[in-house]
Amino acid sequence: VLPFERSEYLDRIAKIKRRMEAAGLELLLIGDPANMYYVSGYNALSYYVPQYVILAIDEEEPIWVGREQDAAGAKYTVFMDRANIIGYPEHYIGDPDRHASEFFADLLRERGWDGRVIGIEYETHGVTYGTVVQLQQRLPNATFQDSNALVNWVRTVKSPQEIEYMRQAGLISDHGMRVAVEAIQPGVRQSDAAAEIYAALMRGTPEYAGEVPEGLMMPTGERASASHLLWTEEPFVRGESTNIELGGVRHRYHVGLSRTVALGEPPARLQDLQDATLEGMEAALDAARAGTTCEAVEAVYQRTIGKHGYAKPSRIGYSIGIGYPGMDWNDFTASLKPGDTTVLEPNMTFHLMLGMWMEGWGLVLSETFRVTESGPAETFSSFERKLFVKP
Amino acid sequence: VLPFERSEYLDRIAKIKRRMEAAGLELLLIGDPANMYYVSGYNALSYYVPQYVILAIDEEEPIWVGREQDAAGAKYTVFMDRANIIGYPEHYIGDPDRHASEFFADLLRERGWDGRVIGIEYETHGVTYGTVVQLQQRLPNATFQDSNALVNWVRTVKSPQEIEYMRQAGLISDHGMRVAVEAIQPGVRQSDAAAEIYAALMRGTPEYAGEVPEGLMMPTGERASASHLLWTEEPFVRGESTNIELGGVRHRYHVGLSRTVALGEPPARLQDLQDATLEGMEAALDAARAGTTCEAVEAVYQRTIGKHGYAKPSRIGYSIGIGYPGMDWNDFTASLKPGDTTVLEPNMTFHLMLGMWMEGWGLVLSETFRVTESGPAETFSSFERKLFVKP
Repeated sequence: VLPFERSEYLDRIAKIKRRMEAAGLELLLIGDPANMYYVSGYNALSYYVPQYVILAIDEEEPIWVGREQDAAGAKYTVFMDRANIIGYPEHYIGDPDRHASEFFADLLRERGWDGRVIGIEYETHGVTYGTVVQLQQRLPNATFQDSNALVNWVRTVKSPQEIEYMRQAGLISDHGMRVAVEAIQPGVRQSDAAAEIYAALMRGTPEYAGEVPEGLMMPTGERASASHLLWTEEPFVRGESTNIELGGVRHRYHVGLSRTVALGEPPARLQDLQDATLEGMEAALDAARAGTTCEAVEAVYQRTIGKHGYAKPSRIGYSIGIGYPGMDWNDFTASLKPGDTTVLEPNMTFHLMLGMWMEGWGLVLSETFRVTESGPAETFSSFERKLFVKP
Repeated sequence: VLPFERSEYLDRIAKIKRRMEAAGLELLLIGDPANMYYVSGYNALSYYVPQYVILAIDEEEPIWVGREQDAAGAKYTVFMDRANIIGYPEHYIGDPDRHASEFFADLLRERGWDGRVIGIEYETHGVTYGTVVQLQQRLPNATFQDSNALVNWVRTVKSPQEIEYMRQAGLISDHGMRVAVEAIQPGVRQSDAAAEIYAALMRGTPEYAGEVPEGLMMPTGERASASHLLWTEEPFVRGESTNIELGGVRHRYHVGLSRTVALGEPPARLQDLQDATLEGMEAALDAARAGTTCEAVEAVYQRTIGKHGYAKPSRIGYSIGIGYPGMDWNDFTASLKPGDTTVLEPNMTFHLMLGMWMEGWGLVLSETFRVTESGPAETFSSFERKLFVKP
């Protein structure tokens, strides 16, 4: 059973084709794992070998092309007809003298697509430099164009079914955060707490199973001054605080959620920063309405925390949705940051990530929200927004 | 505390420089996350933004260059002097009109490196097509060469300390597999078992904490005919079997381990395949001695299972070591496959991955081994090698 109806995949494809047309593209080679999943349903841990979903503007279904060994896995995950699952032979794997681009080029020639205007993603993991160069050399009649973020922009506005999965993911995020706040205690090995949190996120709720999250960040003590760090095997220490950034997942849709936990009475500066950050968050959530711009939301946040003497040098959020381990959960389109004039539309979803990283200490507070038809943003989580202080 | 001594990092760098010299390279831009970790220690979930470890042939230490926000995390993980941690400003993030390559190019010019012969990895995630093209355009006096797998080949022969971490990872793999065999039961939601297994791998042993594994594969029933699939939220079913491929991790070093669990009396063909596969594994482990070649080991396996009427179309193993979520644990160098004439050396480590994927069913059996100074291969796991049958 696939997570989406065939009609939803076809609807996505129709939207992508409209963008292809506008960009003058006749064929799309989609190599980004999240985009492959979005367009075809393909879902397996095989993105370390060359593989593409190929979408021709004049075909109803895309084709999946990857390693022969993975074609079996494609059968269970893609919405397309089996004839549209094509595997390349094993001799292209692990041989520096043979590049799978040879197979892709031959396939395009066979289909009569070798003289087309071909879009390929220039800035995504999953498409290497060598791949593009090899295709260019082997298909001299084709014209290659950068189609980076083309599919991502379609992904940016979610469907009702996607929103439903994100609501379920929100329940899982809440469950994970509850377990995290519980697990973090003086003397507990950080890695043991991380294990609890992963297990909670993967179990999910009795109704909705979770999945492997894209990642979990959990720096503690002085390391809480840095983003993107994990944890260590040292124990948590009384007098230190820990920044938790986690994500519940349903069908690869992530809902990011961040809170800080202090062990023992926190320094006044931490509570002060929390208060300012929360005030800024509430102002930003209220400002994030359909019709406004990304940069306007950011400005509201900066203005609010500015009154308390703070500023945040990095963006305050980004479009969120499909995530894969090691590939982030970012849609890589709109950012809540100065200069981003993207107009908010209903069912855009953002991770409002208010990481406040200071010199030697820091605090995180985040929510994932949906832009509503009218009125302020709706968050997927209902977890209490405070600095958690434990004895 | 870093997992390796400064002297070990410098030793790695010396070996890399010898290969640079042989290839005529004066500068290396290392963008592969596992290679960055190997050369510098850098360890954070930030590989979705452009970042490099840059190694000049005439400098003792490499430099880490990445997003300003991640420079704080670099401080806690790299072995180099803080002066060799360089962050680029936030305005390069999430802006299609500004590419961080501008910053990298300016930096290379400042250092007087813009006329050099520069190696960059053409076939790794972490280096996009756009990055290389932008660097080429901005540095017209530089000569770019493919340095793919250069660092990987140095990684292929492990140091005593790396072997020690893999021994610890082997203990964690055994623990994880014990939990897996226990957790898989009729009626249990597959995702709940996966949660248990992740937690076990991340907890590790009382002495050695584990880490987030690169991945976990656990297809059951008919899906066991495919590699690289995860699990579903359906319950396990009596009469079906499940293929488990997991990895214990210490300091990002992985030890892969695979077993099949049958619920209820398995069909005779499954036990028959297990027997043949095990016989092949034992023969391959005995054959994998220093001085022989990768393809010779593979031939021994095929010959052994061939006597029982089986053949394996895909490679039977590959060099294993540092892994990251979504990035695989493969060293991407030697493979145990026909045509690979790599000569085995002591302290090379391989994942002997005997996935036997048939039409509608399948079996897995794997071990991670070290090539010893003399004698047969030494496995890192001591988990019983059998088809686990549960009532």
